Amino acid sequence: MKFTSEQCLDDGVVEREFILDGIPGILWTPGSASASAPARLILLGHPGGLHKMYPRLAARARHSAAEGFASATIELPGSGDRPRSAAAEQARADLHRALAAGGPVDDEIIDRLVLPLVDTAVPEWRAALDSILSLPEIGGPVGYSGGVIAIGIRLAVVEPRIRAALLFAGSFVPLTMFEEARQVTIPLQVLLQWDDEGNDRQMALDLFDAFGSREKTLHANMGGHTGVPQFEGDAGNRFFARHLSGCLSTCLCS
Amino acid sequence: MKFTSEQCLDDGVVEREFILDGIPGILWTPGSASASAPARLILLGHPGGLHKMYPRLAARARHSAAEGFASATIELPGSGDRPRSAAAEQARADLHRALAAGGPVDDEIIDRLVLPLVDTAVPEWRAALDSILSLPEIGGPVGYSGGVIAIGIRLAVVEPRIRAALLFAGSFVPLTMFEEARQVTIPLQVLLQWDDEGNDRQMALDLFDAFGSREKTLHANMGGHTGVPQFEGDAGNRFFARHLSGCLSTCLCS
Repeated sequence: MKFTSEQCLDDGVVEREFILDGIPGILWTPGSASASAPARLILLGHPGGLHKMYPRLAARARHSAAEGFASATIELPGSGDRPRSAAAEQARADLHRALAAGGPVDDEIIDRLVLPLVDTAVPEWRAALDSILSLPEIGGPVGYSGGVIAIGIRLAVVEPRIRAALLFAGSFVPLTMFEEARQVTIPLQVLLQWDDEGNDRQMALDLFDAFGSREKTLHANMGGHTGVPQFEGDAGNRFFARHLSGCLSTCLCS
Repeated sequence: MKFTSEQCLDDGVVEREFILDGIPGILWTPGSASASAPARLILLGHPGGLHKMYPRLAARARHSAAEGFASATIELPGSGDRPRSAAAEQARADLHRALAAGGPVDDEIIDRLVLPLVDTAVPEWRAALDSILSLPEIGGPVGYSGGVIAIGIRLAVVEPRIRAALLFAGSFVPLTMFEEARQVTIPLQVLLQWDDEGNDRQMALDLFDAFGSREKTLHANMGGHTGVPQFEGDAGNRFFARHLSGCLSTCLCS
């Protein structure tokens, strides 16, 4: 992991851009983080395109830093400055054509779009976790926050360092991932925008029902995809404070 | 309103039982409340039977008192020590028979059970509000918290002093009350227990959808009717702090 820039934001948060195996990423560390008091880490999921998403990601990271959390994100495969995949571009074009036609979207389009993305992205997020957790100012356990929800589901199943996830129900989920959702056992908070045009509400409720976690909470709010109310930022901080607190990666919590 | 007992609980909360027009009730006031700094009030809804419900009501009141809120509740018509109504007893018996038979419950049974309860209880809660808000140590605006959800809906529509409601989706709702739900415009937080045996989940989701409020949030958690997680108490406090704060009944907030 090579840091390529560093700036101190006005609330004392240190923002560093990095490159890891050719993948760009950003790490935000609260001013309080140090080798003797490492900050717990939240991975910030997003739909791809770090430049475009930067304002919202930075706002989420700074809000979490106020609670003492570090945040990190990496670019998704095929997004931003990363090389495009012809198959993914074709699937995306097919998706947009289906949406423009106003009809339902074939499951096979969603599979072609999302499954390769999950298969490629998840090992990249895990590798990023290896590097970031090796920094002395960052500790565990780790939370995952955001979309793409299918990436969050897979990470929750395969990555034991992730102890809690705040998932955004607002992207397409391949039907096969419902089976993976049943294997998720970590505490979940799921955000659903009730009037999200691009999101099938009933499918989101079915997915919430499918999760195997004993503690899972659905927070449904009014408004469209980007209209998540500000108070959910506070609710997210409290969710992670409840599940990531008091226990760094070196301790024996279970 | 005549106070019949007063005790100071170990967290400084003053608990007073009262009788108002023959109806028993309880008022909890935080230690910080005084004529110069009146406490905002939360009405605590419940399914009837103050004695049986006392432990849970007192716990909710003390949790709210930690945030500076006073809480009050009154006995429901036909419950606890109050005279029974033959029609309500018949409706209740018909309901239990339908539930025991495992079949669906006829709408007309729910109408017979709930509509007269709402019609009688709501004016009683409003009269209690008149008396309690006349105490110098209690101020407005007011919140409503709990069930019977049909009572909360009617109060939210007809009682302008109630500015926010935290409703428990877990009791029968007559179909005609969906129309009243559309008239509710105050901020709502709705709690749904996902595995509540006695509650139709889809009907609860439809009711949430029907509410006319621009700010409404659904918090769905795992478990049965009485399994609301403890962290929802904190979430409720923050909901009311957001909507009842900084503004007593004498101020001109809108």
